[in-house]
Amino acid sequence: MTDPNQNQPDPPLLSEIIDSPLSRRFFLRRAGVAGAAVAAAGCRPPGIEERTAADGQEVGRGMINSNSRADTALDIAHTPGHTDATVDASTVEYHRYDPTLPPLSDSRTLRLHWRSTEVPVRISRNKVVAAWTFEGDVPGPIVHVRQGDTVEFTLTNEGVMPHSMDFHASQLNPAVAFRSVAQGESVTFTFQPRYAGAFLYHCGTGPVLMHIGAGMYGAIIVDPPDPLPAAKEFVLVQSEYYISDGPGGISTIDYGKMMETVPDYVLFNGRPDQYILEPIRVSVGDRVRFYVVSAGPTYPCNFHLVGEQFDTVYLGAPPGSAINGVQTFAVPPGGGMIFEFIADVPGEFPFVNHGFGHGQKGGIGFLVVE
Amino acid sequence: MTDPNQNQPDPPLLSEIIDSPLSRRFFLRRAGVAGAAVAAAGCRPPGIEERTAADGQEVGRGMINSNSRADTALDIAHTPGHTDATVDASTVEYHRYDPTLPPLSDSRTLRLHWRSTEVPVRISRNKVVAAWTFEGDVPGPIVHVRQGDTVEFTLTNEGVMPHSMDFHASQLNPAVAFRSVAQGESVTFTFQPRYAGAFLYHCGTGPVLMHIGAGMYGAIIVDPPDPLPAAKEFVLVQSEYYISDGPGGISTIDYGKMMETVPDYVLFNGRPDQYILEPIRVSVGDRVRFYVVSAGPTYPCNFHLVGEQFDTVYLGAPPGSAINGVQTFAVPPGGGMIFEFIADVPGEFPFVNHGFGHGQKGGIGFLVVE
Amino acid sequence: MTDPNQNQPDPPLLSEIIDSPLSRRFFLRRAGVAGAAVAAAGCRPPGIEERTAADGQEVGRGMINSNSRADTALDIAHTPGHTDATVDASTVEYHRYDPTLPPLSDSRTLRLHWRSTEVPVRISRNKVVAAWTFEGDVPGPIVHVRQGDTVEFTLTNEGVMPHSMDFHASQLNPAVAFRSVAQGESVTFTFQPRYAGAFLYHCGTGPVLMHIGAGMYGAIIVDPPDPLPAAKEFVLVQSEYYISDGPGGISTIDYGKMMETVPDYVLFNGRPDQYILEPIRVSVGDRVRFYVVSAGPTYPCNFHLVGEQFDTVYLGAPPGSAINGVQTFAVPPGGGMIFEFIADVPGEFPFVNHGFGHGQKGGIGFLVVE
Repeated sequence: MTDPNQNQPDPPLLSEIIDSPLSRRFFLRRAGVAGAAVAAAGCRPPGIEERTAADGQEVGRGMINSNSRADTALDIAHTPGHTDATVDASTVEYHRYDPTLPPLSDSRTLRLHWRSTEVPVRISRNKVVAAWTFEGDVPGPIVHVRQGDTVEFTLTNEGVMPHSMDFHASQLNPAVAFRSVAQGESVTFTFQPRYAGAFLYHCGTGPVLMHIGAGMYGAIIVDPPDPLPAAKEFVLVQSEYYISDGPGGISTIDYGKMMETVPDYVLFNGRPDQYILEPIRVSVGDRVRFYVVSAGPTYPCNFHLVGEQFDTVYLGAPPGSAINGVQTFAVPPGGGMIFEFIADVPGEFPFVNHGFGHGQKGGIGFLVVE
Repeated sequence: MTDPNQNQPDPPLLSEIIDSPLSRRFFLRRAGVAGAAVAAAGCRPPGIEERTAADGQEVGRGMINSNSRADTALDIAHTPGHTDATVDASTVEYHRYDPTLPPLSDSRTLRLHWRSTEVPVRISRNKVVAAWTFEGDVPGPIVHVRQGDTVEFTLTNEGVMPHSMDFHASQLNPAVAFRSVAQGESVTFTFQPRYAGAFLYHCGTGPVLMHIGAGMYGAIIVDPPDPLPAAKEFVLVQSEYYISDGPGGISTIDYGKMMETVPDYVLFNGRPDQYILEPIRVSVGDRVRFYVVSAGPTYPCNFHLVGEQFDTVYLGAPPGSAINGVQTFAVPPGGGMIFEFIADVPGEFPFVNHGFGHGQKGGIGFLVVE
Repeated sequence: MTDPNQNQPDPPLLSEIIDSPLSRRFFLRRAGVAGAAVAAAGCRPPGIEERTAADGQEVGRGMINSNSRADTALDIAHTPGHTDATVDASTVEYHRYDPTLPPLSDSRTLRLHWRSTEVPVRISRNKVVAAWTFEGDVPGPIVHVRQGDTVEFTLTNEGVMPHSMDFHASQLNPAVAFRSVAQGESVTFTFQPRYAGAFLYHCGTGPVLMHIGAGMYGAIIVDPPDPLPAAKEFVLVQSEYYISDGPGGISTIDYGKMMETVPDYVLFNGRPDQYILEPIRVSVGDRVRFYVVSAGPTYPCNFHLVGEQFDTVYLGAPPGSAINGVQTFAVPPGGGMIFEFIADVPGEFPFVNHGFGHGQKGGIGFLVVE
C-alpha cells in the first residue's frame, strides 16, 4: 500500500508548546502510544493530527486502554507550578521509608482503597521532588499477601492527571482493570495472585515512562503456599529520578532527561542515603531476605551485599527458580527477585547497586548485623 | 618491550574525512578491529596508518576474518545518498512484519539462498530508514528448524558494502563460514543446530555495531527433539535505531549516535507501534509462546506482558533451563529466550520492554486475547 | 519532623574547587557517602559542611567504613599530574595480560601481600592511562583457590590516595576487613571462600565508582570441592575506561564522564584489542572454560563466542545453578559467571560483549582453536 501522506514531514503535533530538544522525538512516540486516547477523548489539542494507522485505518477507540491525555501530561510535566501554588518545599517533611515487610493479614481477603495524588515529596535534606504518588509517598505502600489470597483494590484519583494501577502480581485484562481514571473518579478490580514472588506495581497510564519516573510505583510481595524459612524480611524498590530545578524549591520531573537516560538519582525506596543515615538492622544468626524490585523506569538493580554472599536468589517464583552462591544478580526494570543469606557475621554491610555509575547516585544503604 | 613509536600522538587515521565528534574514538577502534582487513586488502586509504601489533609485529592476514573495508563502510554510513539516487521516501511502502512463527518444513534439510541489500525500509507513516538488510526487510526472514536439521545457507551480496552472515544457532569457524563477501560475491555454509532455542542471526562484518544497527539481523528458532506443548507461537526481535535526517526524506543510520548509546527508536520487529496499530491475536485458552530475541545492537529487552505472568521462561535450551512465575526477564543483546503462558483471560495485553526509557521509544505492542 | 535548614539551597560543599559540570551532583552524593568519613577524620576541608542526618542526628563515626577522603580523591582525579612528574608516557611499556587461570597452590593456605599503587599503565600503542592499581597492573593478579581454602591477605598502600580491598568471595565485616588505609599503612584479613565461582575483587574506598573506574579490580576464582571437568581455563575481566587527555601523554580517569555513563573503552583484561593482536589458543577437542567477571564500573558483559555455543553457563556456584545451550548471557557489573564448551570445531572464534555499543569500544578478542 502507499499512503498518500507518507512523504509529508513529521506532523507538528505538540512540538510548538514544548521546549525540550527531545520534544520532536517524544511526540513521535506520543503520536503512536497516546494519540488514540487523545482522539478518543475528543480533545485533540491545537496542532495535533488525528492518528491513523499506517494503512490509513483510523486507530480504534479502546485499543489503547490506559493513557493520559498526554498533552495534559506533558504540559504539567513541564509546568512545575502544577502543584498547589501555596506549597513550598519548606513545608514538606522528610521521613525514612520503612523497608520492613509488613505482616500478613489474618484474613485471606485484602481490601485496599488507595488514592493517587500529585504531591511534593522530600527525598533528602536539600531536595524536594514534585512527585506523582500512590497514597502520598514514593514508593507507595508495601502490599503483602499469600498466593491465592483475594485482593480487592480500588484507586480513587485525587490528582489532576489521569492515573491507573497495574499490579504485576495479577492476571487481568489491562483494558478494564488497569484503565486510567480522571480526577475524582475511581476504578475497582479484584485479583488472586497466582505466583509467589516480589512484584512491581505501578501506574500504567501513558506515557508510562513519565508516570513511573514521577514516583508511581511500589512492591507487592506474594508468599508461597508453604512459607519460606523464617527470616527478617525487607523490601527494597530501586528507582531513578530525572529532575530539573523548579519554583518554590521543588524539583520537577524531567521527561526529556528520562529519554536521554542519564539519571540524577538511583535510589532504594525513593531517598538517597536513607539507609546510610538510618541503617536496616538485624541480629547475628538471622536469615535475612531482601525482596528487590526494580521500578526503573529504565535500569536494572545489580544487587550486591558488600562483605556477604547470597546463599539463594530466586529468579522466579519461590521455592523454585533458585540459584545459589551469588555475589550479584541483575533485577531487570519491571522485575523482582528475592535475595537471601544467613547473617552469621556481625558488622556493617553496604547493600548496593554494583553498577556504580548508577549506584553511586544514591543506590547504597547499610545492613547492620549486631 | 618498548615500542619506539609509542610516544607519538594518535595516528590521524581517517579522522579528517569524517565529521562525527566521535570519529577519533571510532577510528581508534577501527584501527584495532578493522585495520588489519584494510591492510590485508592492500587498499589502505589516504591517511590511515598500517596497523601493527603493540609489540611491533604486523597484524597477520586472515586473523580478523569478517570485516568491512571500514573506510568504505563509514564513508557510506555518512553519505546518505548511497542508495540509488532515484529512490525517494515516497516510493517506499509500509508493511507490517508478520511475527507468526512459520511452520517447520517437512524436509529435514532447509536450503536458503538469501541476498544482502542496502535498501530504504519504511518503519512508519513518517519515517523511512536507509537500511542494510537480509532479503530486503528488517528484521530478515524468520527461520524455523528442528535441532539436528541441516541448514544449507548461501548469501549473495547484492549491496555495495561487504556483508556476511553469523547464525547464533550454528557451530562453525567464523573465519570461513561467516566471512565477508564483496558486492556480487557469495558465501555458502552448512550447519546442524545443536541446541533448541531462540537465536539471533546477524551480519558479522565489522564494524558489527554498524551492520546490526543498520538492520542486518533476524531470528532462527530451533525446536527441541520432543516438541514443546502446542501453542500459538510468535517471534519478536527487539532492536534499536540511531538515525539522522538524510536527503530524499530517508533517514540515515548514525554510527556516532550508536557510540553515544541513546537510541531514537527501540522496536519489536523493526517498526514502532506496528502491533499497537495491528495487534497480535490469539484465542482464550491458547498457550502462547513468544520467542524473544534481542538484536541490540546495545540494549537488552526487559520483556513483560502487562496484565499477565509467564508460567515459564526458558533462559537456555528448552525444555531445560527454565524458570517459572515470571513478570519480567532481560534478554541480553545478542541473546534469545522463550516466554510462555496460557491466555486464560480475555483482553488486550500490551507487551513491552519494561525499561521504559527504551520501551517508550517504540517497544510496545498488543496481544489481543479474544 | 521539620529540619529548620531544609529550605536552604544545597550547601556549597567542594563545588568551587571542582570544575566538572557534574560536580554539584557528585558532591551531593559525596555528602552522603563520603561526608561521614571526612567528618570522622577530623579533616573537613574548607567549604564542606558537616554531614547530618535528615533528622538532624549527626552521622556516627565508623558507620561508613571504607572511604577516601573524597575531597582528596577528587582533587587528584582532576589533577592529572598527581603521578610522579618525571613520569612520561614514553617510559611506560606495554604487556599483554595473561588470561590463563594460574594453577592451584599445593597448600590449602594462600598468603598474599599486595600493594596498591597509582601508576600509569599502557593499554595500547597510543594510550597510557593514569591508573590506580593492585600490584601495579590492571586488572590486578588472578587469585585461584579452592572452596574452603584459607586466604591470608595483606594490602599495603603505597599510593597517595586511601585504598582498600573488597573480595566478593569472602564473608567478612567490611567495616573492619575492607577498611581504607592511608599511604604507608596496611590492612590484613583472613577468609575462607564459602562458594565456588568467578568473583570480583576491587577497591571499596569511596567513591567506589572512581576506584573501580581507575583500575582497582580483578578476579578471584574459587574451585568447588569436586573439581569441574578438566578444561583449558581462562579469566576475562570486563571493565570500562572513561578518560580525558592529560599531561605527559598520560590520559586521566574522568569521574564526570563516569557519571554520564558513556565509556571510551570497554575492555577484556584492561587493554583494547590485546586478544585480537595475540589471541588465546587452545587445541581441538579441549573443553574451554571462561571465568567472566564484570568489574564495570557500570555495564554488564553480554558474553558471546562467535561461531560457538556454550553447553553450560553457571549463573551461580558450580556445579549447580547451571543453564545449557546458551548463545549469550549477561554478567552483571559486580558479578561473575562461568561459560564453557567443547572446542570441537577448529577456527578463529571472536569472543565479544554482544552489546556492541559497548563491545565495539574494545570488548573483542579471539580464541583460536587449532
